Amino acid sequence: MQLAKPLARLVAELEKLPGVGPKSAQRLAFHILRVSEDEARALAEAILDVKERIRTCPVCFNFTDQELCEICTDPKRDRSLLCVVAEPRDVVAMEKTNEYRGLYHVLGGVISPMDGIGPDALRIRELFARLSEGTVREVILATNPTIEGDTTAMYIAREIRSAFGNKVRVTRIAHGMPVGSDMDYADQATLIQALQWRREI
Amino acid sequence: MQLAKPLARLVAELEKLPGVGPKSAQRLAFHILRVSEDEARALAEAILDVKERIRTCPVCFNFTDQELCEICTDPKRDRSLLCVVAEPRDVVAMEKTNEYRGLYHVLGGVISPMDGIGPDALRIRELFARLSEGTVREVILATNPTIEGDTTAMYIAREIRSAFGNKVRVTRIAHGMPVGSDMDYADQATLIQALQWRREI
Repeated sequence: MQLAKPLARLVAELEKLPGVGPKSAQRLAFHILRVSEDEARALAEAILDVKERIRTCPVCFNFTDQELCEICTDPKRDRSLLCVVAEPRDVVAMEKTNEYRGLYHVLGGVISPMDGIGPDALRIRELFARLSEGTVREVILATNPTIEGDTTAMYIAREIRSAFGNKVRVTRIAHGMPVGSDMDYADQATLIQALQWRREI
Repeated sequence: MQLAKPLARLVAELEKLPGVGPKSAQRLAFHILRVSEDEARALAEAILDVKERIRTCPVCFNFTDQELCEICTDPKRDRSLLCVVAEPRDVVAMEKTNEYRGLYHVLGGVISPMDGIGPDALRIRELFARLSEGTVREVILATNPTIEGDTTAMYIAREIRSAFGNKVRVTRIAHGMPVGSDMDYADQATLIQALQWRREI
């Protein structure tokens, strides 16, 4: 038996989503068949709406439905601090801490020669244009603690130093043991980083 | 920081899907923002289309985009065999075996007093109307091997016997050890069932 065509098509579309395999695509499709017409319509319209109304902030490249994003226009933000992240989702993660009160710059990825992504594919030129305005005193490099994330951070740090010398401080978020984790279960790479990043207390 | 409204709305809609928590709803939403306009539109339209075009087969209550479903209208199907399942997805599972060549009857759930679902909430009356036509010789009860599934099977078996005596054979799919599983890891309930369902070889 084939699934009825509209159902098979929905399953195929759902399977394209990240982390959705054939089995869960089918489960989601059957769920959508079960919910009310209104509920299904709300989902479909939210998808269309997000594509229509969400744009990229021309200053920090975070997602926004305004001309400039809420963070860039917030007068309470510390404009001397700039946190550089790879993706808009990293802004969300950082904001959830309620700890950071500066601005952001979203690179749109990380340097990855394997995938053919060099510095020019990222918004590094735009970062330097912002730094040239002279307001930023510290750049916090908050790319992932992965090979690509570290490479990208190193690259940007070097470029900033060569362009701005010590007028701009460049820092990197710490690599170490996650809070609540167990030494015994830590992977070797994390433990090595935790040792290298140690400081006096 | 709040997510931009259209984005927050999409995350909220995605979170209503089964097995999609806040974290994966956000991941899916960011994915949808990243894909092309066309790809997002294909997903949204598939959702709308499935609601518009998929209906319930008036004979077996499986999903279909035809007047009667493909299985009910297939002349090669054995009309003397009727497999009773709880949900349309169970038809898909059964069809994947390529082993069963009879017809189906989808109950639309199982008896569950805890959720206030009694026999009247299921398509049991419709099942009996089909059996009254006199073509079906065997009813295979293929509800899940759970308390509710077993209760539903027992209830239907009793009702069929009292209405049709031995004119209709009533069988239940076997409960036992899944193929490829390990005795050592089997849960007690499965092992008990596997013992009770044993047969001579």
